[in-house]
Amino acid sequence: MGGTEEPGHSTDRFADDPAFAVHDGGKLRVTPTRSIDSIADLALTYTPGVARVSSAIAAEPALARRFTWAPRVVAVVSDGSAVLGLGDIGPAASLPVMEGKACLFSEFAGLSAVPIVLATKDVDEIVEAVAAIAPSFGGINLEDISAPRCFEIESRLRERLDIPVMHDDQHGTAIVVLAALRNAAKVVGREIGSLRVVVAGAGAAGVACTKILLEAGIGDIAVADSKGILHAGREDLTPIKQWLVDSTNRSGFAGTMIDALAGADVYLGLSGGTVPEAAIASMAPGCIVFSLANPIPEVDPDMAARYAAVVATGRSDLPNQINNVLAFPGIFRGAIDAGAHSITEEMKLAAATAIADVVGDDVRPDYIVPSPLDRRVAEAVAAAVAACAREQGVTG
Amino acid sequence: MGGTEEPGHSTDRFADDPAFAVHDGGKLRVTPTRSIDSIADLALTYTPGVARVSSAIAAEPALARRFTWAPRVVAVVSDGSAVLGLGDIGPAASLPVMEGKACLFSEFAGLSAVPIVLATKDVDEIVEAVAAIAPSFGGINLEDISAPRCFEIESRLRERLDIPVMHDDQHGTAIVVLAALRNAAKVVGREIGSLRVVVAGAGAAGVACTKILLEAGIGDIAVADSKGILHAGREDLTPIKQWLVDSTNRSGFAGTMIDALAGADVYLGLSGGTVPEAAIASMAPGCIVFSLANPIPEVDPDMAARYAAVVATGRSDLPNQINNVLAFPGIFRGAIDAGAHSITEEMKLAAATAIADVVGDDVRPDYIVPSPLDRRVAEAVAAAVAACAREQGVTG
Repeated sequence: MGGTEEPGHSTDRFADDPAFAVHDGGKLRVTPTRSIDSIADLALTYTPGVARVSSAIAAEPALARRFTWAPRVVAVVSDGSAVLGLGDIGPAASLPVMEGKACLFSEFAGLSAVPIVLATKDVDEIVEAVAAIAPSFGGINLEDISAPRCFEIESRLRERLDIPVMHDDQHGTAIVVLAALRNAAKVVGREIGSLRVVVAGAGAAGVACTKILLEAGIGDIAVADSKGILHAGREDLTPIKQWLVDSTNRSGFAGTMIDALAGADVYLGLSGGTVPEAAIASMAPGCIVFSLANPIPEVDPDMAARYAAVVATGRSDLPNQINNVLAFPGIFRGAIDAGAHSITEEMKLAAATAIADVVGDDVRPDYIVPSPLDRRVAEAVAAAVAACAREQGVTG
Repeated sequence: MGGTEEPGHSTDRFADDPAFAVHDGGKLRVTPTRSIDSIADLALTYTPGVARVSSAIAAEPALARRFTWAPRVVAVVSDGSAVLGLGDIGPAASLPVMEGKACLFSEFAGLSAVPIVLATKDVDEIVEAVAAIAPSFGGINLEDISAPRCFEIESRLRERLDIPVMHDDQHGTAIVVLAALRNAAKVVGREIGSLRVVVAGAGAAGVACTKILLEAGIGDIAVADSKGILHAGREDLTPIKQWLVDSTNRSGFAGTMIDALAGADVYLGLSGGTVPEAAIASMAPGCIVFSLANPIPEVDPDMAARYAAVVATGRSDLPNQINNVLAFPGIFRGAIDAGAHSITEEMKLAAATAIADVVGDDVRPDYIVPSPLDRRVAEAVAAAVAACAREQGVTG
């Protein structure tokens, strides 16, 4: 199965990196839920028995929810245009990431997931292709699609399809950031609504984080792209950046991201690059630093600890890892369990609260989010999301 | 998982049919090939370890064959327009059939397969959608797409994609029919090329069977659609029926299918309906009857046995079942093993010979094809198809 080079063979140039061993032959497998050992099994799994099941669904479409696998399968869809920190590496090279995501859906939510990587980066073609294959799936997890195309693709698919659609780089990140910020605020004894936040990055994650923080009641947010804080005087803004200008930066601050940090309570880094020590030192006492660039955080975590009361990163080898795996498995599981036809803002807020609540009273500066391996999280998120969906009536 | 009605519950109206029990919750599952039990596992399966694998593939695309699952996954693609004998039941109702097919890929060829059912029946949209998602897969099995759209869809996808594409209702059927006819000819002591064949049905299976029988050296074939034998005097022919007219019926016979059976050696029924006893009685002595409509063969098998030396059907409860499962798992397995970028006519002929050869010297009137459960078949077909692909140089 392994292709041209045998694992463990002495000439295998990949033998020294265990990541390649884990990927050898691929990371996923599709198997039947029941074995086929007899002609009778064959006649039930396939013709002629299957015809009775197909006929029943044709007559009563709601039966597909019970008698097909589709409602329990998530498509992990990417065009490979914004993969991790690697950028536009294309569909084939993005596949290991999508396979990994599918592994996490299985491990943490008991859902099947299928990587769908696309031979096109055209927005219309992506929307048409995903809409065409949608009856095969119970949910669509959009992944690693570059901004600003990701906004339009998600928005058009949400409108067109009656199954949950979520771009995880936006909302998965935003949900975990909000969960972490709720607990960080608890650590420093602040109401979340009173915090002054600087968001560094106006891409997929920056936009979604800003949106969910606004929804959570944070009024004072300034968002920076590579040219500085977004404000009404900026020109050549994309529609989504115009929305950020209209929704944030009430004081009309027109300087750099570094300038905006003076006196700020929260730095939320989603952009890469390096933030100088003086900028962190200029933040308010008891400040909070979430520096999520991976593998190299924008703010050196040791340096940040000298000024901030709480520090979080995206790294698995440091405390307070902001990891989307805390959100997406439970969100899709909850939406699917409830038969929700979409994932609403309220469901996302409920997910964030559920994640924060798993930490509960154990909250401390180095424990504001659960471990990514904490099996309680997906279950709690699924329950909260399903309850919210049922309450809102977005089911059935 | 089971939806609104619990299996085994006393009010469950599906409790009496075991086919529904087999389908409850769906027939497939996607699972990781390796479990995620630690932060170290997570860091190899997903970030940051996965980034090294993705980077390697981006730099050297051929590595995708070893380090992703795609080369070992077949998409089972249908628009639900010609499902079994049920007709145009749509994507959701066709899903149990596609799931069943995926089960068979797993059971008999050790391949993963993913049902992709489509929300469109438009030829252009189907071609675009399948081409868009193709980098996710190692092969495309088209299934239950109605004629004549199936011909154009397959032909355009074969041209456009560099992975194996095969419409199984055409070629799977044709390959098993040829295998069965080779052994039936042996039973009656005839050279296959000397047989006079009447093909009843000019849809997907009829066209493909005619094509492969011509390739196998049978020169005297008459093909009937619902209006009678196709001949040069017929009007309003689709391009594919025009091809049949140009390629078959050398004598220009212009009557009905029933008339054409007089003196014929082989009846190949792919159309449904009923053939009267007198027509079978009019066939040549030692004739061969393949009556493949399911569940009710065109020719009553008991009646056929009074006139024919060999009788085959599509039914699992009778001898000589012509079942596509003898072909498609091994064909895709062989093509994938060889790294073939298409499935050629020669590879199909090699598959038919391999199936016939599994029966070998044990051939007798009620044993012209192996059992669908015979595990030797897929292996033999895969080996023959892979060897043919390598010989033809359609690999790599």
